[in-house]
Amino acid sequence: MQTNEREFRQCTEFLTEHDDFLVVSHIQPDGDAVSSTLAVGWLLSCLGKNYVMVNEGPIPRRMAYLWESEQIIDLSVTPLDHKYKHVIAVDCADFSRVGKTREYFAEDAQILNIDHHPTNDGYGTTNLIVPHAAATVEILFDLIRVLELQMNKEIATAIYTGLLTDTGGFRYASTTPKVMEIASKLLEYGVDGPGLSELLLEQMTLPQLRLLTRALNQLVISEDGKISWVTIDDEDMRLTGAIHEDLEGIVNYPRNIQGVEVGLLFKVIHENAVKVSLRSNGKVDVAEIAQNFGGGGHVRAAGARIEGTLEDIISRVVEQVNLQL
Amino acid sequence: MQTNEREFRQCTEFLTEHDDFLVVSHIQPDGDAVSSTLAVGWLLSCLGKNYVMVNEGPIPRRMAYLWESEQIIDLSVTPLDHKYKHVIAVDCADFSRVGKTREYFAEDAQILNIDHHPTNDGYGTTNLIVPHAAATVEILFDLIRVLELQMNKEIATAIYTGLLTDTGGFRYASTTPKVMEIASKLLEYGVDGPGLSELLLEQMTLPQLRLLTRALNQLVISEDGKISWVTIDDEDMRLTGAIHEDLEGIVNYPRNIQGVEVGLLFKVIHENAVKVSLRSNGKVDVAEIAQNFGGGGHVRAAGARIEGTLEDIISRVVEQVNLQL
Ligand SMILES: [Mn+2]
Ligand SMILES: [Mn+2]
Repeated sequence: MQTNEREFRQCTEFLTEHDDFLVVSHIQPDGDAVSSTLAVGWLLSCLGKNYVMVNEGPIPRRMAYLWESEQIIDLSVTPLDHKYKHVIAVDCADFSRVGKTREYFAEDAQILNIDHHPTNDGYGTTNLIVPHAAATVEILFDLIRVLELQMNKEIATAIYTGLLTDTGGFRYASTTPKVMEIASKLLEYGVDGPGLSELLLEQMTLPQLRLLTRALNQLVISEDGKISWVTIDDEDMRLTGAIHEDLEGIVNYPRNIQGVEVGLLFKVIHENAVKVSLRSNGKVDVAEIAQNFGGGGHVRAAGARIEGTLEDIISRVVEQVNLQL
Repeated sequence: MQTNEREFRQCTEFLTEHDDFLVVSHIQPDGDAVSSTLAVGWLLSCLGKNYVMVNEGPIPRRMAYLWESEQIIDLSVTPLDHKYKHVIAVDCADFSRVGKTREYFAEDAQILNIDHHPTNDGYGTTNLIVPHAAATVEILFDLIRVLELQMNKEIATAIYTGLLTDTGGFRYASTTPKVMEIASKLLEYGVDGPGLSELLLEQMTLPQLRLLTRALNQLVISEDGKISWVTIDDEDMRLTGAIHEDLEGIVNYPRNIQGVEVGLLFKVIHENAVKVSLRSNGKVDVAEIAQNFGGGGHVRAAGARIEGTLEDIISRVVEQVNLQL
């Protein structure tokens, strides 16, 4: 069934041959990280294994509906009493992503590395890396089939969550026929797909919407219509009551304007420092621009923290983007 | 294969027994209406039939990528030279939805009515109504299989378009396992799903974004946080340069606020008439409210045109919603 049959076999051997696992995912876990942790925990419990699921910090509040999500230990609050010889790391593109969970890895720990990031360097002692998978949960869906376990609604909900968040609601280029086929099967297990979409992708708090409104009021578009940006300062945050995570998604509005190649969000940190988020439709490599300012990222999504006044930084960044247009 | 085998058989008989069809969909056609028109045209051409595709008005500009979309005649610009005895109406919940296309129906015209609206009253002489289908294109996908026609990328793109727009990008309650399974098959035909999502669901014109901004600036939320609304008048349209179709989607912003049960959009038509769009998270049946004002729709999405001043209409509609909370 799998083209990477050998990796799947090594993975199942790792799971069946050992006991007492530490299951970890990356710092500031997203939907795929949390769901993958829970899916691994579930399949270990099906195999009758002992395990503990941990993260360096808390999981996002809006994922509290996930079955047994309260079992993921926040190490910043609750330390463990011993180290583990067998670790399963999910959705971690490189070893540093496991964060402080590594403090509980035994010195001679064996690591099973399950991930979908193409840049994963295979830091595990056993590796199951599937770069064409849209999410780590897609790999785990296959693993559950290989192990011949009977899926239930709760674990199907976790897998659907990982797919939804890592594909932006079945919109990113990673949305393959296989992703949609898996989604179809998960819905058959009774997953409330529309409810999850609403909760994870559509719902906004009132402060979040107020912040978006203030940002849109300040939207600027270049004369040729190819660059557009918004600015947000402390007053915007204060008057709306918004929190840091409410900034997420705002930069997509300038980027999604017809004809715009690059969308920018300038967030004033203080008088003399600005964080810029850059989003490109693919023509301009914004990672390169971010790097010029000491930041980094991907071709289509990057960021940098820049010293200087807002006015000065806007003109410098816009100038750099223009050079690539 | 189909539980409604008889309806499918009658439908295929209608298609095979006649020739020279008029293919129509509803006024102000949406993605499903346009795609369904094109899908019917395509299958008629496969069957070697003569046909003409029409609409009362123009099709949305952003659907110009659809294969042969330029073949859909805008009757407001180009009248036909004769009436048709055989009409195929797609995605029209009731007969009035065909608009002025009816001027080209012969007096004794036979109508094949293909639709997915649960409220469809079966106005056709032949009816293929599948209320659990997410979109009319879903019914046409099945019809193409029944007719044993070989789908291609172009027609798969049209069907994906109808699914995307009628399910809000696989987010509405209508997103069944079958919808996702069909989407998977369509992607296998080479459909650029992510590209269509960006074009149809994410991209906005600058006037559209300016209109959204003006609407959000006027957003009101009730004291208990359960009802929220925005208003748009002629000045908003004029100052932003927005067109009618740019109104679509705006009502989701008030509805998507955490805690809000009903989101409303009041669009002033003239001094003494307002069109209200109602969106519910499911608790309140907005179809019932719309019906009280002479409109109609579904439990979660409805609309009505109401005579009166804006202020008066807002308070009357909000009062009706409050009665159900
Ligand atoms: Mn991931
Ligand atoms: Mn429809």
